[in-house]
Amino acid sequence: MSQLLPSALVDAIDELGRLPGVGARTAERYAYFLLRADKRISEELADALLKLHSGVKSCPVTFALIDADEEVSVLYSDSARDKTLIAVVEEPLDIVALERTGQFHGTYHVLGGAISPIDGVGPEQLHIPELLERLTRDNVQEVIIATNASVEGESTALFLQRHILDAGIDIKLTRLARGIPVGVDLEYAGQITLTHALEGRRAF
Amino acid sequence: MSQLLPSALVDAIDELGRLPGVGARTAERYAYFLLRADKRISEELADALLKLHSGVKSCPVTFALIDADEEVSVLYSDSARDKTLIAVVEEPLDIVALERTGQFHGTYHVLGGAISPIDGVGPEQLHIPELLERLTRDNVQEVIIATNASVEGESTALFLQRHILDAGIDIKLTRLARGIPVGVDLEYAGQITLTHALEGRRAF
Repeated sequence: MSQLLPSALVDAIDELGRLPGVGARTAERYAYFLLRADKRISEELADALLKLHSGVKSCPVTFALIDADEEVSVLYSDSARDKTLIAVVEEPLDIVALERTGQFHGTYHVLGGAISPIDGVGPEQLHIPELLERLTRDNVQEVIIATNASVEGESTALFLQRHILDAGIDIKLTRLARGIPVGVDLEYAGQITLTHALEGRRAF
Repeated sequence: MSQLLPSALVDAIDELGRLPGVGARTAERYAYFLLRADKRISEELADALLKLHSGVKSCPVTFALIDADEEVSVLYSDSARDKTLIAVVEEPLDIVALERTGQFHGTYHVLGGAISPIDGVGPEQLHIPELLERLTRDNVQEVIIATNASVEGESTALFLQRHILDAGIDIKLTRLARGIPVGVDLEYAGQITLTHALEGRRAF
């Protein structure tokens, strides 16, 4: 098709097609949109992409994503945050989801993934030693394991639980409740979700 | 959320969110993917975007998209293409779809849209005068009106038909067949599609 479309457009389509879940048709749509739109939109997107890596780093304590010129995540350095309570999440964006609830005032620890033998991710690739250090250094009282409700997330949660117990650290370990999400009818909730909802039932 | 994510990441999310059909979650996914991927991928995408507008122009004859350093579309200049047969399409990417069939050896004419009063697009914004010029200049024998099977595409097709007749140009005017797409069961074909399929039925 190299003859059919200008090479600059083909290049843009190819590059946009590297984004996750973007097939050839979607990439064509994006590129054609940008071509028809004001040149400024392409330029501003390009500019943001060029500054992305240099503008972002990992917090050395929590492994949250922070501005390259920050020392440590404000979600850790903020004195209003309870450092004795840690929510352990898989990925940095999980923090955004939890913060949106406005209900959590502890600190975070990003594992950097979940244990997944199929993807070649073992516990040694996760930020687990740094978590254990924090437990003693910050005199942590409770760790909420907030990994995803996937097979990998569950395995990671169980591994962490065993690992912390084995380390002889006496601490409250909790997990996010599993149950029926708000707005979902019982008949559409999966069998495992319903089992969790039954097991975790609460008195009024 | 400005405190939660590094500003360089927020910028990338915002800019990616301008792409058509990309909501906040998808933009986050794209940006986070780029951040985790090799820096080179962001740089190559940025580079392609910066070269997009300057590398592409419209063919002055067919209004297909061509390389900025080309004079005219190869789909027109190629002597193997039949200049007396024109397929009229709405958008440049429609050419790619028709070329993929490998069955068309005429030339193209891109209207640059379809008549849509709701979007403020009237016939005067389409490349219709240039089409009429080509009809006489290239001694065109047949025009295949290959606009989309939408209300706008249909209106545009009817407008073009009347317009060419009114101009007193004696030419064969055809349209793409409407009917049941390959692989679609009768029960799922819409009523209007079935009506077209009945009207357009052919002998074995």
